[in-house]
Amino acid sequence: MRTVWLNGEFLPENEARVSIFDRGLNFGQSVYEVTPVIDGHFCNWPHHQARLERSMATARIADDTDWPAVLNELIARNGLTEGRIYLQVTAGAPADRVFPMPEPQAAPTRFAFTQADALLDNPQARRGQRIVLRPDLRWQVRSAKTTQLLYAVLMKAEAKEAGVDDAWLVEDGVVTEATSSNAHIIDSRGVLVSHPVDHGVLPGVTRISVIAIAREMGLTVEERPFTPEELFAAREAFISGAGTLVVPVVEVDGNPIGNGGPGTVTAEIRQRYIEVLRQQ
Amino acid sequence: MRTVWLNGEFLPENEARVSIFDRGLNFGQSVYEVTPVIDGHFCNWPHHQARLERSMATARIADDTDWPAVLNELIARNGLTEGRIYLQVTAGAPADRVFPMPEPQAAPTRFAFTQADALLDNPQARRGQRIVLRPDLRWQVRSAKTTQLLYAVLMKAEAKEAGVDDAWLVEDGVVTEATSSNAHIIDSRGVLVSHPVDHGVLPGVTRISVIAIAREMGLTVEERPFTPEELFAAREAFISGAGTLVVPVVEVDGNPIGNGGPGTVTAEIRQRYIEVLRQQ
Repeated sequence: MRTVWLNGEFLPENEARVSIFDRGLNFGQSVYEVTPVIDGHFCNWPHHQARLERSMATARIADDTDWPAVLNELIARNGLTEGRIYLQVTAGAPADRVFPMPEPQAAPTRFAFTQADALLDNPQARRGQRIVLRPDLRWQVRSAKTTQLLYAVLMKAEAKEAGVDDAWLVEDGVVTEATSSNAHIIDSRGVLVSHPVDHGVLPGVTRISVIAIAREMGLTVEERPFTPEELFAAREAFISGAGTLVVPVVEVDGNPIGNGGPGTVTAEIRQRYIEVLRQQ
Repeated sequence: MRTVWLNGEFLPENEARVSIFDRGLNFGQSVYEVTPVIDGHFCNWPHHQARLERSMATARIADDTDWPAVLNELIARNGLTEGRIYLQVTAGAPADRVFPMPEPQAAPTRFAFTQADALLDNPQARRGQRIVLRPDLRWQVRSAKTTQLLYAVLMKAEAKEAGVDDAWLVEDGVVTEATSSNAHIIDSRGVLVSHPVDHGVLPGVTRISVIAIAREMGLTVEERPFTPEELFAAREAFISGAGTLVVPVVEVDGNPIGNGGPGTVTAEIRQRYIEVLRQQ
């Protein structure tokens, strides 16, 4: 049984519970981060910390947990070598559910847990994902990593019903991102095109490395939205995220991308990114 | 101390807790209802039940709790005569946080609690609300009553900082609704104008009665969106909801509505609605 962390205590996973009055549960006033763990170390922390602080500011949550100490202890207690750590911070549980933020605010609810998983040896990295396009009907504050995730859950369910792995979301004629990762193409000219970081997409931590690596590889990078038509005509397509690292997309709405197999540029970006993680 | 209800058990309010792996907490996969309680009876149940079932279908949550039995028992145990009952149903707590819906699904998490409050003798009904307009950046599936409520929380906070009571939300040049209630005007011609029930707004239970009462009063009712300009020029403006019933709005962005006092038509709709509730 895992040991998880909740509000300063290390607990068995089945004893970690929060009040039914928690504002994360009643109002979705809650933010989170997911960090990859490789070789027993959590990765990219400065970027995750910075994004967490931005997300908390957006969601009006104040907290100063010493996360690196918590994450290191969780890794040690659970003997985690490869996988993820998930952490969440909510606006806490006041004495009653009242829609406006209470004054004074409740103490934030904070928890974290490990997830053992094979990040490096991922079958999807070898075979590629098949996806469908769906409209992006999420709220417009996607730059914050909040738990307003129901729409993504619903689109993942629709993708599964369509017999594929995931959905990419389309708004105003351009692709924003995948349901839970950033979306990129190597377009018909060989240029890496990726939606810019604005309120339309999550500013992905993996995305930062992907773009830096692409530039090191000599690729031209254009941070701009791309259309479904550009996606259909692309040489390669791929996602980036803490849980998947870099994974190719080989089919969209039944149409093959490029030659229908995982792209070679994508494979090199993935490999280089894994090296970056291992060197941390 | 209140007695609340959680997954079949009546518990002291401070012992009602849910897993940190609850999908309501991690993904906002969660729906709710709030019913007014007047004279010790919860009101409008058939409408709340119907909307709850629609919300659950949208959020892919299956549950068949006998809510009337739960609500009656909660009212009795807490001696509630006037106020609200809040109930929430989530997609439950699987053994781990995995973004796609697990198969089989976890058993839903269900809880409910009472809130004693003066619904009939509400100071805001006498003095009216002052509001500001804000952009509506919420997700596009507002017809379901889900806990994707962070944007509403943030706009309530902005309203408070602006020194007023609430915000009304504007999208594509029309008013959608208030942060947590439906928005209506008696326009410059004396017509009740109210956003139609579609994905843009919550299909309010109180709204159903408001429109029926307005027609009984001989008012013309137009179910269509209205613009901020129509709002500024309106004779009266008001909100409807389970927590507030019917409450006048007297000022928008610093401009008085009508003569700047609570409207007489609004007052009559409120009074007639209270009679409807008392006759149930």
